[in-house]
Amino acid sequence: VATGARVTARRAARRETIGEAVFELLAEVGYDQMSMDAVATRAKASKATLYRSWPSKPDMVVDAIIQHFGGPPPAPDTGALRDDLIALTASACEWAQSRDGAVMVGLMSAAARNPDLAETLHRCTHEVRDPTHRTIVERAVARGELPECADPVLLHEVLDAVVFARRLSVGAALDDDFVEHVVDHVLLPVLRNQPGA
Amino acid sequence: VATGARVTARRAARRETIGEAVFELLAEVGYDQMSMDAVATRAKASKATLYRSWPSKPDMVVDAIIQHFGGPPPAPDTGALRDDLIALTASACEWAQSRDGAVMVGLMSAAARNPDLAETLHRCTHEVRDPTHRTIVERAVARGELPECADPVLLHEVLDAVVFARRLSVGAALDDDFVEHVVDHVLLPVLRNQPGA
Repeated sequence: VATGARVTARRAARRETIGEAVFELLAEVGYDQMSMDAVATRAKASKATLYRSWPSKPDMVVDAIIQHFGGPPPAPDTGALRDDLIALTASACEWAQSRDGAVMVGLMSAAARNPDLAETLHRCTHEVRDPTHRTIVERAVARGELPECADPVLLHEVLDAVVFARRLSVGAALDDDFVEHVVDHVLLPVLRNQPGA
Repeated sequence: VATGARVTARRAARRETIGEAVFELLAEVGYDQMSMDAVATRAKASKATLYRSWPSKPDMVVDAIIQHFGGPPPAPDTGALRDDLIALTASACEWAQSRDGAVMVGLMSAAARNPDLAETLHRCTHEVRDPTHRTIVERAVARGELPECADPVLLHEVLDAVVFARRLSVGAALDDDFVEHVVDHVLLPVLRNQPGA
């Protein structure tokens, strides 16, 4: 049993090393240029080990992302919907401009040409981050700031789309003015005014 | 004078040939891989000619786009805002899935790593297409369907962002259900409910 536990721990550690190697390579060369050979070399693992754990490149990337980012970010809890949304949007903007954000933008771009990657990527980014949006909306509904039918998945969809488009276009700044613009002109109108509300 | 006119016509024709060569290469190899050498070969032009007309690669690409797409698409005119938005969104979705759309998605992705390209690209796509959104909003304001302050630039920003994000994510379909979702749950709430309306 002790040996079994040691083996499990060693496997987990190796998995973590491989995940970080994948994430580094995504940052350095991008999805299209990342080869299993390069991952094996970087992680000092055999290609047999890689293929045993991850039958495809998208699977490996998704695992690396989940490992790198961990669970959902904590939901801001200011006591007021607008302030929660400002904090949420600001952190989405900050993230979009970080190294991690650059990796994800690169992956989204690669996903436009790789349906398999697109599907797993969408699933993992949404599964990881949906709880944050849900918590913000549920608290606002409980305070009477939003109707019962306010939709956290829609919030997530629209926020990510607007920040992502801005990140890709222009040297357009993801600054405080942009954050307020998104919250006051897009997110609040959408959350408060669903048909049948 | 006759000779001058012939020279001008010949130059315009050569410009068009070069523009189409650029667009074809963007579709085939993408922005990053497209070299001035390849453009010169494809268009049967000298590199000196290219550099004389377009000092930089972004300039050349923007010219090719403007030439390829021509002026703004005609605004749908159904007599009702929702139907106009359905038509507008449906054509944005159709376009996003076309060869032309694939070229633009590729350019947007490349733009994430090329601020010069991003800036000129943003300018030309917005300048070309803003009038369509403006016409739809102005007609709706005239019919009393929207408040005076309804913002066509915001419509353009949000519509493009949501369609683009959907195009990049998943094998998520850009189908009729998605079009109605965007219009009823995003665009109409945003257009009708601006702060201070």
